[in-house]
Amino acid sequence: MKISLVSIGDELLSGRTLNSNSRWLAHQLNSLGHQVVLGLTVPDIHVRIIESIEIAADKSDIVITTGGLGPTVDDRTREAFAEFVGADLKLNRELLSTLEKNFADRNIRMPKHVRREAMIPDGAITLHNSVGVAPGLYIQTENGTHLIALPGVPGEMKAIFEESLKPILLDLSGERPVGIESFYTTGIPESPLYKIVADSLGEPNMDNLAFYPSTLGVEVRIKIFDTPEDRNVLATLRSATEPWCYTRKEKSLPSILGNILTARNATLSTAESCTGGLIASRIVDIPGASKWFEGGAVVYSNRAKNSVLGLPNEILEQWGAVSPQVAAILADNAATRFNTDYALSTTGIAGPSGGTEEKPVGLVYYGVHTPKLTIVRKNRFTGGREYHRMHTSQAALHLLWLILENKYKEHPWADGSVETLHK
Amino acid sequence: MKISLVSIGDELLSGRTLNSNSRWLAHQLNSLGHQVVLGLTVPDIHVRIIESIEIAADKSDIVITTGGLGPTVDDRTREAFAEFVGADLKLNRELLSTLEKNFADRNIRMPKHVRREAMIPDGAITLHNSVGVAPGLYIQTENGTHLIALPGVPGEMKAIFEESLKPILLDLSGERPVGIESFYTTGIPESPLYKIVADSLGEPNMDNLAFYPSTLGVEVRIKIFDTPEDRNVLATLRSATEPWCYTRKEKSLPSILGNILTARNATLSTAESCTGGLIASRIVDIPGASKWFEGGAVVYSNRAKNSVLGLPNEILEQWGAVSPQVAAILADNAATRFNTDYALSTTGIAGPSGGTEEKPVGLVYYGVHTPKLTIVRKNRFTGGREYHRMHTSQAALHLLWLILENKYKEHPWADGSVETLHK
Repeated sequence: MKISLVSIGDELLSGRTLNSNSRWLAHQLNSLGHQVVLGLTVPDIHVRIIESIEIAADKSDIVITTGGLGPTVDDRTREAFAEFVGADLKLNRELLSTLEKNFADRNIRMPKHVRREAMIPDGAITLHNSVGVAPGLYIQTENGTHLIALPGVPGEMKAIFEESLKPILLDLSGERPVGIESFYTTGIPESPLYKIVADSLGEPNMDNLAFYPSTLGVEVRIKIFDTPEDRNVLATLRSATEPWCYTRKEKSLPSILGNILTARNATLSTAESCTGGLIASRIVDIPGASKWFEGGAVVYSNRAKNSVLGLPNEILEQWGAVSPQVAAILADNAATRFNTDYALSTTGIAGPSGGTEEKPVGLVYYGVHTPKLTIVRKNRFTGGREYHRMHTSQAALHLLWLILENKYKEHPWADGSVETLHK
Repeated sequence: MKISLVSIGDELLSGRTLNSNSRWLAHQLNSLGHQVVLGLTVPDIHVRIIESIEIAADKSDIVITTGGLGPTVDDRTREAFAEFVGADLKLNRELLSTLEKNFADRNIRMPKHVRREAMIPDGAITLHNSVGVAPGLYIQTENGTHLIALPGVPGEMKAIFEESLKPILLDLSGERPVGIESFYTTGIPESPLYKIVADSLGEPNMDNLAFYPSTLGVEVRIKIFDTPEDRNVLATLRSATEPWCYTRKEKSLPSILGNILTARNATLSTAESCTGGLIASRIVDIPGASKWFEGGAVVYSNRAKNSVLGLPNEILEQWGAVSPQVAAILADNAATRFNTDYALSTTGIAGPSGGTEEKPVGLVYYGVHTPKLTIVRKNRFTGGREYHRMHTSQAALHLLWLILENKYKEHPWADGSVETLHK
């Protein structure tokens, strides 16, 4: 079905907030077989919200709004929905008691105005919010337009979408694409990956293909119909992306590593300098990480590298903190210190300052300690501090994955990295 | 003046590309004294582009489009502009020779279809593109609407904006911005904060006020006019939000702590269990953190708490890992181990599993070690694992900030937390 997205909030028009919700939703909706035909961004003004819903309803079968569901007077989506469908706002008692319980659990007295959140348009279905208080809303107009309201807070929007909205949208999408297949790759930039895929498939077969790059890698996604041709296309795509594809389902590298390590009853620790805890943080993001992750050291200063992970000062003086030698010792010593089978390490220059001609901003060494060997690779990532840390964390996790999967030796490197230590 | 932004491109509706142009433009336009009142995102379809320009022109004085100015057939903005203003597309010879020269300079033969880029609506002014080939366009309709077309490539869009469009927009903006003031708060949920602000200002003064909640806190933002009344409103707002306001500029808590610690020549370390490196990672996100941050230990397992930070096993057995005693010792021992003046610690149950009746999912203890004392507070955050970690990291950083700013004693706690250890 045709869908319009209406993003509500002054902060989206003032430039304060990036509208990442729309992209995320568009991505999801397309993979459910729907088509996003229009995006609208409007301020928290009652009449503007109604106008935009009118425009959206005129162009599409389903209108999804984000934002404006909070408890304050500048949250106006409930009123707009009610007016648009010609319904009254009614107190939903069940919702009110959920709200009251939520505040009671947090040991906070519920302010009176929060009651607003329990006032919903008569006839609307609430979509349960497992991570926040305001539920989503779903209501159908007399003309058959499906109106859906989601909160603007990304975590809440996503939770409601996944838990309550997806089944409804799957139901509404008559023409299910027979299959959408994804290949999550990392360690290869979009352009060379595109070339490899295009060369293997031939241009005419690229129609149903999409590339979604992020700081963690590139997702290649294809819509497949149940024909022999398409099964061939899928097989070709599988082998073209195989060296860089670490999963076919939407799973993070840490969670994939967790499954492998758990199955082998093996453990991991980290020693991070330039990534500053990002790898550990991404690991701990995975429920159940305690089964395979012992912990890590963020050794940001040279003194911490020495005092916490026993890096000899002579090594620091001879090679400098950003060197393959330091990366290797950090990984080895983390494994000893945390008593783990495997350990990851990073040391680099994230910038913006601190670079030299010999060791420029962006330079990084990352290492993997295993019970048998220790490997360090070097790369140079451009694009700023945050980008550098994300790329380094992913490269280090990917290196461990290649080693665990016994794919390291024959891996066709495509990210510009080189091995600098192997012992 | 009122401005609408029209973003053109299939990639924006498929979820492939994040619309970062709109945010950048909105930010710029607001600071030039204009007001962005509507955002539209449409596919590369001629009739949809025209419709969206009609809607936008109806709502605003200036319409700025991005995208659709390239040389290929799916670049349709030039045609849409021409049709909308009722002008012909005419070959601009000057532009054509610029294009030809550009290709000649790169020693590439100009493909025929690139000529399209030199066909512009009769009467349009070209806006020079110093980093790409397609120029921007500026044309006024008979009704006086200002139509501006910019390329979708961010670097080109920004260059044209800065070099050619800014002077035009400054000219058009008669009324300079009256002033927008922000209060960044944390440690108080949106609803009670709203109540406090509403009680202090009175409903009639809430019109220009907005609340922007995130996992890190709530920003209160107000539009101020240069009148005695508004100066009063600002002063009232300042004192109402004061206990929870940690900055008036857009700055993160780690960066504010960094400034304070640097000024005092003091250092910080971290000991994280449930936050798993998130605090360290947020700190290292700040350029120059090496001046005041030594590093941290992610002690996820009990064994790591013992072996890396010397937490006695008897303490673990007696009180359990999630206890004020453990939070205190972790903070104290991190300070010793990393040889820092201050240290932060966290230990909690992020869920989804691992909770008991006595220690439910969401429970967390976080501590601050200072040269004089160690304080541990307890809270219970609901809303899932990621939310729990973000909230805990912010609460721990905020606790340190309150202590450093000598505001801890009289702080009116509003987040449900309680002190559980003070020594």
